[in-house]
This record gives sequence, structure tokens and C-alpha cells, in this order.
Amino acid sequence: MEPRISIVTLGVANLARSRAFYEAMGFRASSASQGDIVFFQAGAMVLALYPREALAEDAAVAAEGDGFRGLSLAHNVRAREEVAAILAQAAAAGGRIVKPAQDVFWGGHSGYFADPDGHLWEVAWNPHLPLSAEGAPMLPP
Amino acid sequence: MEPRISIVTLGVANLARSRAFYEAMGFRASSASQGDIVFFQAGAMVLALYPREALAEDAAVAAEGDGFRGLSLAHNVRAREEVAAILAQAAAAGGRIVKPAQDVFWGGHSGYFADPDGHLWEVAWNPHLPLSAEGAPMLPP
Repeated sequence: MEPRISIVTLGVANLARSRAFYEAMGFRASSASQGDIVFFQAGAMVLALYPREALAEDAAVAAEGDGFRGLSLAHNVRAREEVAAILAQAAAAGGRIVKPAQDVFWGGHSGYFADPDGHLWEVAWNPHLPLSAEGAPMLPP
Repeated sequence: MEPRISIVTLGVANLARSRAFYEAMGFRASSASQGDIVFFQAGAMVLALYPREALAEDAAVAAEGDGFRGLSLAHNVRAREEVAAILAQAAAAGGRIVKPAQDVFWGGHSGYFADPDGHLWEVAWNPHLPLSAEGAPMLPP
């Protein structure tokens, strides 16, 4: 297996609502979107939206589940001030601010929003993790 | 917000076990890993491992939750035969094959494994979604 993630697929309750949310956040739906799947190019990977029940069925697992999903997505920004601005953007687009922008113990500044289905996104300014011109985080080896 | 995901952080019950699993899958831990966080460069993004309870605390949400997490990660491969091979690699590394490699209705070939904490990965060969030389999926605009 090569060390990469190709697609993050979010299970959603209402595809039109979620598509509108991510479009309001700056994602652009690809013309490859069709039927009940929406694809967004997200840098060198893809963010997809698919009905939650259908996603469980595709994975051959039961669709029941609630509470904390045990993982988060992060969007790292170039400047400290962007954190609060993006959280406000998410709230205006139909998301929910879960943790307001604040200084954090590791020396950065971050907050969390939840998308319309409760998927958690951290928005973080991390002075220890530089971003490339394209916005890719660049770890040391 | 720029349309990109910087980091996917997986909450884990046993950091050493999960690090060993992902290393066996081909990921290489960055020297920026420290304490209870492990970072892997994953193409133009980062895969991180962090204790599940600490991740919930960081997001200021309750840690309770079980069942289907409502999302999946996908690893797209260049050749049909790689799907079964990677599922076998995951099983050998301490994961679980959730759905064996099989032809799927959209014309590809795919299967699912779960990592030691139950995080779902689809492994897919998708002839409709070309990969760049670096393995990045390339959607039409």
C-alpha cells in the first residue's frame, strides 16, 4: 500500500444540504458527480458526499451508530486570523461551531466546527507545520 | 476556506498498536511525532494518530460513541489485482477484512478493511478515476 489517502467519503442525511454546505465553504463539485454521489477535488485528494445508509451498505456494515465518530478532519490555515473567520463561515453556511477559535497548548490557534451531519473539522493555525504554496502540510521525514 | 483537507486524525485506543499497523501498511512516521501523537506524511496531506479520548477532549465533545462512524477513507490503486493484495496486507498487519475484494456496480473492483480501531478503509480500483504519477485522483472540473 502506498502511504496516501485518495478519498474521504462523508455519509450524509441530505445530499443537497451537504453539497450546498461544502460549496459555501469553497469546494467545487466535479462534473463527475452523479446520482447520489458528489465529488470535490480537494488538493491532491477527493472529498465525496454519499448517503449515510448507502455508504454503510457499500461497506457491508450495519448503519447504526451515534456519538463521537472517533476521528476528525483538519484544515490548516496560513494565518492565525483565518481560524475564527472560517469558523464563522461554517456557522453561516449551516454548520455549528463546536469549539471557538482559541490558543492551544501546542503553540497554535484552533477551533472546531461540525458539518450538517456532525462530521468534525478542526481549523488550525500551526506555526510548527509549514504549508506548501498549494496548502499541503509538509512534515519533516 | 480553501478546498482541501490538511490532516485526517484517527482516534485510537492503543497508539503503539496503531502505529505498528500503519507502518506495516507502508506509512512512515515523521520525526515530528512526539508524546501521544504520530504523524505520517500521506501524499499532500497528513494522517495522524491520537488517543481517542484526547481527540474528543481536544474537540470539546463527549467521547462516547459507537457503531458506524458515518464515513470512510479510500485508497485507490492502479491495478485491479492490488485490491485483494492490500486487503490481505491489512489482515496480516492486524486489521480485519470487512468486505472482500469484488467487482462493484460502478465498474470497478473494491473491498474494505477496518484498522485496529474499526476505522473503515475502502481499497478500490476505479477505471473512471485516473491517478497522477504521485497517486493523486484527478477529477474532471
